[in-house]
Amino acid sequence: MTRTELIAQIRKKKSFLCVGLDPDLEKIPQHLLKTEDPIFEFNKQIIDACRDYCVAFKPNTAFYEAEGTKGWQSLLKTANYLGKTCPDHLSIADAKRGDIGNTSSLYAKAFFDNLGFDSITVAPYMGEDSVMPFLAHPGKWVILLALTSNKGAFDFQTLKTGEDPLFVKVLKTSSKWGNADNMMYVVGATQAEMLVEIRKHIPDHFLLIPGVGAQGGSLAEVVKYGMNKDSGLLVNASRSIIYASSGTDFALKAGEEAKKMQQEMARLLK
Amino acid sequence: MTRTELIAQIRKKKSFLCVGLDPDLEKIPQHLLKTEDPIFEFNKQIIDACRDYCVAFKPNTAFYEAEGTKGWQSLLKTANYLGKTCPDHLSIADAKRGDIGNTSSLYAKAFFDNLGFDSITVAPYMGEDSVMPFLAHPGKWVILLALTSNKGAFDFQTLKTGEDPLFVKVLKTSSKWGNADNMMYVVGATQAEMLVEIRKHIPDHFLLIPGVGAQGGSLAEVVKYGMNKDSGLLVNASRSIIYASSGTDFALKAGEEAKKMQQEMARLLK
Repeated sequence: MTRTELIAQIRKKKSFLCVGLDPDLEKIPQHLLKTEDPIFEFNKQIIDACRDYCVAFKPNTAFYEAEGTKGWQSLLKTANYLGKTCPDHLSIADAKRGDIGNTSSLYAKAFFDNLGFDSITVAPYMGEDSVMPFLAHPGKWVILLALTSNKGAFDFQTLKTGEDPLFVKVLKTSSKWGNADNMMYVVGATQAEMLVEIRKHIPDHFLLIPGVGAQGGSLAEVVKYGMNKDSGLLVNASRSIIYASSGTDFALKAGEEAKKMQQEMARLLK
Repeated sequence: MTRTELIAQIRKKKSFLCVGLDPDLEKIPQHLLKTEDPIFEFNKQIIDACRDYCVAFKPNTAFYEAEGTKGWQSLLKTANYLGKTCPDHLSIADAKRGDIGNTSSLYAKAFFDNLGFDSITVAPYMGEDSVMPFLAHPGKWVILLALTSNKGAFDFQTLKTGEDPLFVKVLKTSSKWGNADNMMYVVGATQAEMLVEIRKHIPDHFLLIPGVGAQGGSLAEVVKYGMNKDSGLLVNASRSIIYASSGTDFALKAGEEAKKMQQEMARLLK
């Protein structure tokens, strides 16, 4: 999916919502446990209910790996279903991978070639040659961790390195590896005021923003400090949407929550 | 596996060798492709041939994920085979994971509970709460990336943060999260002289050292600068051992290469 296509979708739907597909067998409606593949069945219904209100879907790989081979199969089915029914949505493998060059190439093969994702989240610690193999895939995106939404973000990401905190150094250095057409950054909503500093260094890149909703970040603040002329934002919500109800109406309720966020986004996009 | 048990194995075998199980379908002997699970068949024979000369085995998850569901199945079979035939070896999932707390818990479930690995490599960028869920598993180990063996290590890991380079800050901060009984660190052999600095901060922790062999690091230098009274080293070799031959004698040749390294280690341990 190209940047132009993504921007067009945001304008058309008046939404920059990303729905996180984090299915936990202990949290999904219990009636689904009787189906052959509860995780896929859950995702399928969530996707169908939310697709009109969002521009991206983001399965986090941990939730699938925790179910072993069967979970990987559910991830494959989910990726295929997204490819078939949501060709206009950005699909994000939230995998936070990163390894030496030849190994990162294999992760790129796994997530881009085999599973067909449009993008993958990547950890920056191992530097340029751990990221470049992902950028070698035309039409695909790297979404690099810059400033995450958890408390541990303050352990290393905000340490001063010379004039800049580490996350700014990550932005400055890594933005030379690719461009706004093949790289985005993860920036947590819990630190919305830091978006001002971030936008100084990467005015054009899309930002993937977790931490709105269950983690407590504010959508209005994110827009105020982080939006650019193309919107430049993908705001993720997972738990607040997908677990809106634990009953048989879970998909309906998820769709309603997604719609609420879309409507708030429509107002903010004006 | 406890630290005491690991040290006992090193003394008994006169070896601190870790064999990396990185099976690539394009590199493994072609006659194996006719078997039902070529990756597992390859690993099984490598494990049988090398186990007497090494104290650890380390599958890198990228090689398995690149083969999709079937690859994950091969990883499970490999982990089970290690559990059954090598209970005295440390098993390492080289996964380089790390995410917000509840998500890291799921990775811990995937690799410790389901696959039964003794340890997992973890990326430090997201800080304390991304690492602690792994440390919550008694008897298991976190092997945290500190200074990696690739060129990109110099992009961020060696940046000065105050008095210290980032990787030293990672050592100082993270060594308070656990202790030498449940944490180790990845330190690349290509920068062996930096082991002197590293040992100042973590004299007792085990170090997992990649980059000896195919990546060019020297075993003698690693020992000179990095060994402590318990050895404190696990030196990994992957390609130089597992791809020693591409013929039907691959396991025999792999065993010979592992034995050569063990013999060199035995000399250096004196």
